[in-house]
Amino acid sequence: MNFSMIRYTLGWLLIFESVFFCVPLIVAAAFWESAFFSFLIAALIALGAGLLLSFKRPRHTDLYAKDGFVIVSLSWIILSLFGALPFMFTGVTTSFIDALFETASGFSTTGASIFSTVEDLPRSILMWRSFTHWIGGMGVLVFIMAFLPLSGGQNMHIMRAESPGPEVSKLVPRVKKTATILYIIYFAMTLVMFVFLLISGMDVFDALNTAFATAGTGGFGFKNDSFASASITQQIIVTVFMLLFSINFNSYYLMLKLKFKDAINSEVKAFILIVLFAITVITINVSSMFDSIWDALRHVSFTVASLISTTGFSTENFDLWPELSKTVLVIIMFIGACAGSTGGGIKVSRIIILFKGMGRELSTLVHPRQVKKITIDNRPVDHEVTRSVNAYIVTFILIFVVSLLAISFEDRDMITNFTAVTATINNIGPGLGGVGPASNFAAFSPISKLVLIFDMLAGRLELFPMLILFSPSTYKKG
Amino acid sequence: MNFSMIRYTLGWLLIFESVFFCVPLIVAAAFWESAFFSFLIAALIALGAGLLLSFKRPRHTDLYAKDGFVIVSLSWIILSLFGALPFMFTGVTTSFIDALFETASGFSTTGASIFSTVEDLPRSILMWRSFTHWIGGMGVLVFIMAFLPLSGGQNMHIMRAESPGPEVSKLVPRVKKTATILYIIYFAMTLVMFVFLLISGMDVFDALNTAFATAGTGGFGFKNDSFASASITQQIIVTVFMLLFSINFNSYYLMLKLKFKDAINSEVKAFILIVLFAITVITINVSSMFDSIWDALRHVSFTVASLISTTGFSTENFDLWPELSKTVLVIIMFIGACAGSTGGGIKVSRIIILFKGMGRELSTLVHPRQVKKITIDNRPVDHEVTRSVNAYIVTFILIFVVSLLAISFEDRDMITNFTAVTATINNIGPGLGGVGPASNFAAFSPISKLVLIFDMLAGRLELFPMLILFSPSTYKKG
Repeated sequence: MNFSMIRYTLGWLLIFESVFFCVPLIVAAAFWESAFFSFLIAALIALGAGLLLSFKRPRHTDLYAKDGFVIVSLSWIILSLFGALPFMFTGVTTSFIDALFETASGFSTTGASIFSTVEDLPRSILMWRSFTHWIGGMGVLVFIMAFLPLSGGQNMHIMRAESPGPEVSKLVPRVKKTATILYIIYFAMTLVMFVFLLISGMDVFDALNTAFATAGTGGFGFKNDSFASASITQQIIVTVFMLLFSINFNSYYLMLKLKFKDAINSEVKAFILIVLFAITVITINVSSMFDSIWDALRHVSFTVASLISTTGFSTENFDLWPELSKTVLVIIMFIGACAGSTGGGIKVSRIIILFKGMGRELSTLVHPRQVKKITIDNRPVDHEVTRSVNAYIVTFILIFVVSLLAISFEDRDMITNFTAVTATINNIGPGLGGVGPASNFAAFSPISKLVLIFDMLAGRLELFPMLILFSPSTYKKG
Repeated sequence: MNFSMIRYTLGWLLIFESVFFCVPLIVAAAFWESAFFSFLIAALIALGAGLLLSFKRPRHTDLYAKDGFVIVSLSWIILSLFGALPFMFTGVTTSFIDALFETASGFSTTGASIFSTVEDLPRSILMWRSFTHWIGGMGVLVFIMAFLPLSGGQNMHIMRAESPGPEVSKLVPRVKKTATILYIIYFAMTLVMFVFLLISGMDVFDALNTAFATAGTGGFGFKNDSFASASITQQIIVTVFMLLFSINFNSYYLMLKLKFKDAINSEVKAFILIVLFAITVITINVSSMFDSIWDALRHVSFTVASLISTTGFSTENFDLWPELSKTVLVIIMFIGACAGSTGGGIKVSRIIILFKGMGRELSTLVHPRQVKKITIDNRPVDHEVTRSVNAYIVTFILIFVVSLLAISFEDRDMITNFTAVTATINNIGPGLGGVGPASNFAAFSPISKLVLIFDMLAGRLELFPMLILFSPSTYKKG
């Protein structure tokens, strides 16, 4: 284990976090909020700790796979710990666990909140919440590694550990360049959305918040009713961009290179089909609850886009919808977005690989002498990838079940517990029942909140890094 | 596809079923019930159809893997269709779907019922219900194949398709002999239980019913309150035997051969640990609801044994227990019994293989150059077995989700829908909420019942055979 390299990277991470604090600092200054000083102190603490840790350059900069996993998971925990400081300093909450919950929820792009009303929070705090989504959406470490004055192949380990999806495909041979391309696409799409929102009549603050929270598929709202009181145009803009940010960013790169056939790959096609299926079924199911079928279609589209992209905004309390609709919603919460997007969940490509694996098994049973390889988009899927996806599902079920057990010590109903874990491990935000869109996570005990914080971060980092961090065997020599 | 061999086997199956009908026939005769004639007609119909189908011996007796799957799944459907006839002829139900539900529930050893009160049913009907559990518990086709005057290796395919668990280990080189040993153990254990129950003061009819339903881990009761009004001794006997019938029968064979170390393998150990864990947690959790901790321990032990063995008897309405207890119960419903027992569920050995696969993946991530094979009891697990177990889980999730969607068209609460599928696909019987131990499955629509019938049979046959039967690619040449 290269401990000095871990220390060094975490130091740089904190220096970057102190820079991130400048965004809410500017907002606080613009609106003359006393929160300015809270953010200033937080930024100085992060800067000080960061300089202290990164002062001495490590002698060896080699990173092994396990170092990469440890760096990534530690980084996200430290990012959340320091990011929680302004919530304490401004006094919007007095519980550090609550502050940590809110920040981990932000960086992990979950959007589950402990605040029942957000409209009376300082604007700088609202901006910090949305901004954590934006930082968390694309992952921060790849960004930092691209900046650090280090040579060599460390970045691939980090990128593999921090990127969502079963496979990391390099767009161009150099990791640094691939990362840069993806960040530019991310930045440009956020900007386009921001401009659209401004045109729709939103003010700069609201539009920036919305764009940040949508781009990261996070879902923290800045209104108590989320997007219920937004204009229809704004709701439609958010719907479209939630879906756009759920699609593999590689596809956009391929589109820019005019390779449309490669861009619309089977994952994108499957994603679109699932979205259309869910919208159709639910719209028919809830149509009688709305004035017109168009009203129903609009709200259902928003909800489906919000939940499959794992954003978690709402225009309607879908907890009141009929059971069939709620069942479909819970299912798409698990499916989640495409790999390589900012969305969470199990990811469409993993679902495809799992189904193909099942199909191959059935065909092997029927024709035992046939040897069949799984292919996606006419390319064979490596045995390692299939195996890893299977292990992912088992890990997912294990973390899910243990979390469910842990939080059911508090005697809440099973739907609340089940969807609380669903909404956090898949980085969505709201669930059903006691954690439905009209409720929040404040009522859970500190221990349950710690469990859910773990789930949010584990979900964002695709489970394995967090498990590796807490597994004793990682620190054994060998 | 060897259609004449399929026809021939199904014919013999029906002849055997007409013989099975003799058990309720004798009961009907003993109690002077008019149901005698219903069973007589049903037996004659089955015999007639059976003779017709098996009249002409097939020229070729070779069976390929897919023939095996088709025979097994078709057999269980036909067994249920003809087994449902007495329910119609006696008039205890007027709906054929209900009769089919009850019979499929019986043969699949589920024990989910459409009757709200069973005490006013004819005794011959009660006996037929319990007897279907006993037939279904060990599987009927292996039995028939052992009797059929055919030579060769057809049996292994059938046995593999009909036996619960990821691997079929032959105790002795010849399949026929292995099957015989297992049937003798099954018969002997049922007999021992029957004798114990007689000693405890049960009358012959009740004891036989209880022994049949417990041996098959079925769970049809013959009292409206299941086992709540049975004596404490009887409840303890049933608890112990439910657990005994959940353990791999191979272990008993090894014990008889005095190979105790091999008999108590890691699956058995894991099973015992899970049972102890569940009993401890739930007993502490519910202790305040009972007069004494011993009362709590007794009822909890019965409930845990009943649900993990997937029997489904009850002494208490566990739907009223606190959430933590209910969550633990739902989890053990999924885990289920050991492979090679009469119990259902995912099976402990599959869970072990899944966990070991996850552990290997984590260790591969941390030490990418290490190549590690999964071992169980110091024996390496074949790659094919791991792959098949992974495909099993995916198939399980797929059938589960589709069934959940299908039955949620009726606007029942999610807990009822979720546990209705859980209780049928895992062959348990009762679930929670609307299908809790104090309720039954009568209220579902015919379509939902068909879905649940499919789940019960698919669950009993370990999913793949049923999917293969209904998959068009099975019937393609190639």
